[in-house]
Amino acid sequence: MGYLTDKFFNHTVKARHVTFILTLSKWILWGSIIGIVVGTTSALLINLNDFLTDVREANHFTLFFLPLGGIVIGYIYMYYGKGSRKGNDLILEHIHHGQGEVPLRMGPIVFICTFITHLFGGSTGREGAAIQMGASISEGVNRLLKINKIDRRILIISGVSGGFGSAFGAPIAGTIFGMEAISIGKTKYEALIPCFVASFVGHYVATAWGIQHEHFTIKNIPDINTINLIKVVGLSIIFGFTSVVYSQLRHEIKTLSDKYLKNLMLRAFVGGIILIGLTYLIGSRDYLGRGLPMVERAFEGDVPTFAFLGKIVFTAITMGTGFRGGEVIPLFFMGATLGNTLSTIVGLPTSFLAAVGMIAVFSGAANVPISAFLFSLEIFDGQGMSYFFIACLISFIFSGHHGIYAAQKIYEPKS
Amino acid sequence: MGYLTDKFFNHTVKARHVTFILTLSKWILWGSIIGIVVGTTSALLINLNDFLTDVREANHFTLFFLPLGGIVIGYIYMYYGKGSRKGNDLILEHIHHGQGEVPLRMGPIVFICTFITHLFGGSTGREGAAIQMGASISEGVNRLLKINKIDRRILIISGVSGGFGSAFGAPIAGTIFGMEAISIGKTKYEALIPCFVASFVGHYVATAWGIQHEHFTIKNIPDINTINLIKVVGLSIIFGFTSVVYSQLRHEIKTLSDKYLKNLMLRAFVGGIILIGLTYLIGSRDYLGRGLPMVERAFEGDVPTFAFLGKIVFTAITMGTGFRGGEVIPLFFMGATLGNTLSTIVGLPTSFLAAVGMIAVFSGAANVPISAFLFSLEIFDGQGMSYFFIACLISFIFSGHHGIYAAQKIYEPKS
Repeated sequence: MGYLTDKFFNHTVKARHVTFILTLSKWILWGSIIGIVVGTTSALLINLNDFLTDVREANHFTLFFLPLGGIVIGYIYMYYGKGSRKGNDLILEHIHHGQGEVPLRMGPIVFICTFITHLFGGSTGREGAAIQMGASISEGVNRLLKINKIDRRILIISGVSGGFGSAFGAPIAGTIFGMEAISIGKTKYEALIPCFVASFVGHYVATAWGIQHEHFTIKNIPDINTINLIKVVGLSIIFGFTSVVYSQLRHEIKTLSDKYLKNLMLRAFVGGIILIGLTYLIGSRDYLGRGLPMVERAFEGDVPTFAFLGKIVFTAITMGTGFRGGEVIPLFFMGATLGNTLSTIVGLPTSFLAAVGMIAVFSGAANVPISAFLFSLEIFDGQGMSYFFIACLISFIFSGHHGIYAAQKIYEPKS
Repeated sequence: MGYLTDKFFNHTVKARHVTFILTLSKWILWGSIIGIVVGTTSALLINLNDFLTDVREANHFTLFFLPLGGIVIGYIYMYYGKGSRKGNDLILEHIHHGQGEVPLRMGPIVFICTFITHLFGGSTGREGAAIQMGASISEGVNRLLKINKIDRRILIISGVSGGFGSAFGAPIAGTIFGMEAISIGKTKYEALIPCFVASFVGHYVATAWGIQHEHFTIKNIPDINTINLIKVVGLSIIFGFTSVVYSQLRHEIKTLSDKYLKNLMLRAFVGGIILIGLTYLIGSRDYLGRGLPMVERAFEGDVPTFAFLGKIVFTAITMGTGFRGGEVIPLFFMGATLGNTLSTIVGLPTSFLAAVGMIAVFSGAANVPISAFLFSLEIFDGQGMSYFFIACLISFIFSGHHGIYAAQKIYEPKS
């Protein structure tokens, strides 16, 4: 045989091709299993959360049970948590160091606690629950199939991707989110295939269960010119700092609680009392729950000037004292309302700046510039993509090494 | 002072903020310098190349000078190249191992050789020249400012980003391209800021010099449903294999040349003769030069069934025997014409499949799934993004570890 045919038909090449197909099939299979299960649980989470939110809004008195709900949540994590209290940070630690087993119960527990938080008005989202459920399901698959250590980590990352993709109806952003959220400095490309499969399958399964996601409309995108670019850069720096204010405040509240309110039940009870007090102090229930109506208002018309600050305080207290849910929708709230407030000052269209703020604060707080950008493409149909790309990067850079995930590993300094 | 104020005003925090601002300013400054210079040289490259293409198309006889042009190119690299012959691979090796200095002359030499190749009809693009010029300019900045070793590498990566962003008018894809092309398994996030600045500044400077980029229009995007998704996945596997065929053929031609035609002048001379022979054998000049008209035709109407194969052969011979230019536009040609050919078989819209093929073959050949996806957003205004994302990933996965850049470092297996 000739030179070329030799190369094409020798054994090593053949063996390599077989390995390739086997490994690929394995990742596709596992990614699909995770996607199907995570998509289903996310659909359950979203439907039940929507229902509980309706119940809460129809029955204002439920808020008074928030401190009691806090005691229940504290009790569950103290006596049945098995370390799952650390939530997303536990997942990150497990992936980085192989430390801190992801307990199977993490998923069900975070679901129950998220439902309690939502029913009684805690200021929180839901994707934290979806992500933690994704990770526990992956861990279940791991144990069932006795998967080796390296593959285990990859599967957990793909659970995170599936959770994000299905919770937000954003499978492209979900694919990258799992890999990007794991660390600030390094993206784990080897996880690309299972993350991709889990995120897309998860999204389609959730859609098949009838889940519909919020859509926000940007009414007009300003022309790309030097002045507008400078404005967006400047505003993105502000959005980046806003994300730092939120994540630092939450960290401080948690640190203070660890110091002065060691008992988890007492801690959440106090958090609940403070939230009730604040609600009556400002005379508005807008900062309870996820706050999606306010995000919508930020795209449509006027919101209170300091609405963003209200959400920062409410969510930082909710999450800092041990309630459960997620921080992404609250971050959207902060960003969209701040963008709305700033739009009159800088003379850019309101819905445009609400969108930029929403995405940029998320990018900075979660340290996920590429996922945040991809998310903007998916929910705004690619409108104004250059602005969003710039906003995500600038906010990410100016948020420094702060972020909502304390256990993110910083491989390389951002600058 | 209280607990919080203590934290905010202590010295370490202050010092860290000063360092942050200084480092950031440094990267913005260097990125801008690189962007300005690279944007200018890319504008020059594009204008001169367009001019030479016009001259060649108006004067068919120029093709007969291709073997002679090959001798000149071989001569230049043999006696004045100082190692720059390795082109993009040299840049990769330098970044990975600090080996193989990037010579300053690499930029001017590759420009001259690209002009010669284009004037006489070599089947090639231009972005290789833009990227190598970007890297040499960065190296010039490095030497001028006596920059330390780690920063040097980052600056070279940002030169690559600036080259891509300005050569294609795609600053978002350019930002990520520099980091993604460096290696298959790992993306260097620390380079994000200078890459971002160099790519955007490079693009705006090239635009300011009057450069306008090609736009291709997708007439209609098929609905997202299971059947269409399966079709796109299947086709993307084919596009991935096509990229393997091209890069393997080019590597084989180079390997054979290294064995039997060691003299660079003789090698390119023979390459030129073969290209002339092939042109007259098939009786078409469509495969000479970049071939942008054929890419346009693939979006509009019919192209020869095996046009993709023609381009594979022509470009593999051109690049494998030492001519210069770039492979991205030829890859677009292969993908778009193959997509066009396949569209009648699978029953998907022609312009849509031309677009998917163009992006997917590029993704697989250059091993840059994220950059290729971002590029699709920028040139097709975000249309059909889910399809493009899937196509880029599938093609990347199925191209295995083959690729046009032999020196890409494989940190982690793809699957």
